[in-house]
Amino acid sequence: MEFWYTEDHTDEVKFSIKVDKHIYSENSDFQRLDIFESKEFGRFLTLDGLMMVNEKDEFIYHDMISHVSMAVNTNIKKVLVIGGGDGGTVRELTRYKTIEKIDMVEIDELVVRASQKYLHYTACKLEDERVNLYFEDGIEFVKGKESEYDLIIVDSTDPIGPGEGLFTTEFYTNCYKALSEEGILINQNESAYYETNAREAKRAHNKIKNIFPIAMAYQYHIPTYPAGHWLFGFASKALHPIDDLKAEDWNSLGLKTKYYNTELHKGAFGLPNYIKELLESE
Amino acid sequence: MEFWYTEDHTDEVKFSIKVDKHIYSENSDFQRLDIFESKEFGRFLTLDGLMMVNEKDEFIYHDMISHVSMAVNTNIKKVLVIGGGDGGTVRELTRYKTIEKIDMVEIDELVVRASQKYLHYTACKLEDERVNLYFEDGIEFVKGKESEYDLIIVDSTDPIGPGEGLFTTEFYTNCYKALSEEGILINQNESAYYETNAREAKRAHNKIKNIFPIAMAYQYHIPTYPAGHWLFGFASKALHPIDDLKAEDWNSLGLKTKYYNTELHKGAFGLPNYIKELLESE
Repeated sequence: MEFWYTEDHTDEVKFSIKVDKHIYSENSDFQRLDIFESKEFGRFLTLDGLMMVNEKDEFIYHDMISHVSMAVNTNIKKVLVIGGGDGGTVRELTRYKTIEKIDMVEIDELVVRASQKYLHYTACKLEDERVNLYFEDGIEFVKGKESEYDLIIVDSTDPIGPGEGLFTTEFYTNCYKALSEEGILINQNESAYYETNAREAKRAHNKIKNIFPIAMAYQYHIPTYPAGHWLFGFASKALHPIDDLKAEDWNSLGLKTKYYNTELHKGAFGLPNYIKELLESE
Repeated sequence: MEFWYTEDHTDEVKFSIKVDKHIYSENSDFQRLDIFESKEFGRFLTLDGLMMVNEKDEFIYHDMISHVSMAVNTNIKKVLVIGGGDGGTVRELTRYKTIEKIDMVEIDELVVRASQKYLHYTACKLEDERVNLYFEDGIEFVKGKESEYDLIIVDSTDPIGPGEGLFTTEFYTNCYKALSEEGILINQNESAYYETNAREAKRAHNKIKNIFPIAMAYQYHIPTYPAGHWLFGFASKALHPIDDLKAEDWNSLGLKTKYYNTELHKGAFGLPNYIKELLESE
């Protein structure tokens, strides 16, 4: 028997993974969740038929969504994670002893519960005593907050379905207000290669750079996402991701990482011309 | 009607492209050639069922195989290209007025002829008067040559079939001898993500670093190759790819590139930890 999971990367491109078992499938109020077991990628979670995390390469995504900001501002104490229901982002953040509080706001409780049951590799630190779980809409949660967080991480899906409101000017403006003076906003900023993703990458970046004095995008290479070449946004009121990098401080922490390192941190901001042009265009 | 080209990235992973037409198919003495027309990637060439070039992202491969070395040694005059039958590498090299001679040695004449007929976007500069085409085995061609080239580019397929001998210690040693004092060797160094490619990436790098005093790998992100995250090797007798980078000189040439730029050049050598560990292991 052959059993294949197939994802449409565009209408013209398909990516297929041989699976061993379909171990979970449920419809929440927001989306369809599936968890598969595979030889190449281990266990993986899809939401509405799109790869979210897998055992083989989630380290790439979670290293890059968390360590870049933590190496720029080593005084981060209060963190807000919006989305990220699989727990991987929180897992990386809990490695920092200096972090005092992590509020995680995931609209879909089922993503967290399924991850806790089936994806221990990412969900393993959600019980850390510094973590507060809120099963609410992140858009509402951040409204009216002032200078409460040193770091906000928008660990969202694509801007369709439940993730849509996390790509709006209003939401980014509320994040700005909710951040402290040296606060940093990290957002899932899509990809520049296929047209649909590229349009969203550009729109998100344009909105953020109109709000934050410092707004840049950085790249990472995750084979299981469409095109494999993805972006996070780094925005801050005061800190520059390279000029203010505290490389020595970060390295003195002795955190072992499988993807992130200081040279890569700098290189991640060295985008190809076609991506720079896309992001700089109005 | 739906018509799909499917490539096995591993036994467990497939990548499929919707095609409009299968416009060419031929068996040479060495391999099977196919050219397809598609909406997402334009025309693309496969050899033995593996993607070689396509209209959408060949610029990434060809920028990175050619401009990195040309920005480190701006005195390169004599170049040897082994493989690269589609002509894309030669196309980029002919943009440098300082290059006096390009010997291109492609074992399979049919790849060149098919590219000239169907892939004008890469083959368009093969008639440049500085280009000499040799339809021979590159392994034999380089034997016995001494200090003849300033740059050798091994633009090969994977180390199976006709490309196999281009991944041997003997071949790399002959390249070393064929290079001038400030000579640079660039080689297609596979990928670190899927096991088969990773084994070859490590083996090639280990062989080259035992021969050249300076041997490093650099990354590029090409969505249509397995995992999308690939490596070239940079080896030299004397020049370091970052310490000896002539950024100002290169930028003063005013070459327009869609992928390559100076910041990206530096960043390309900032490899993720898992790749560094793979390449450094014996």
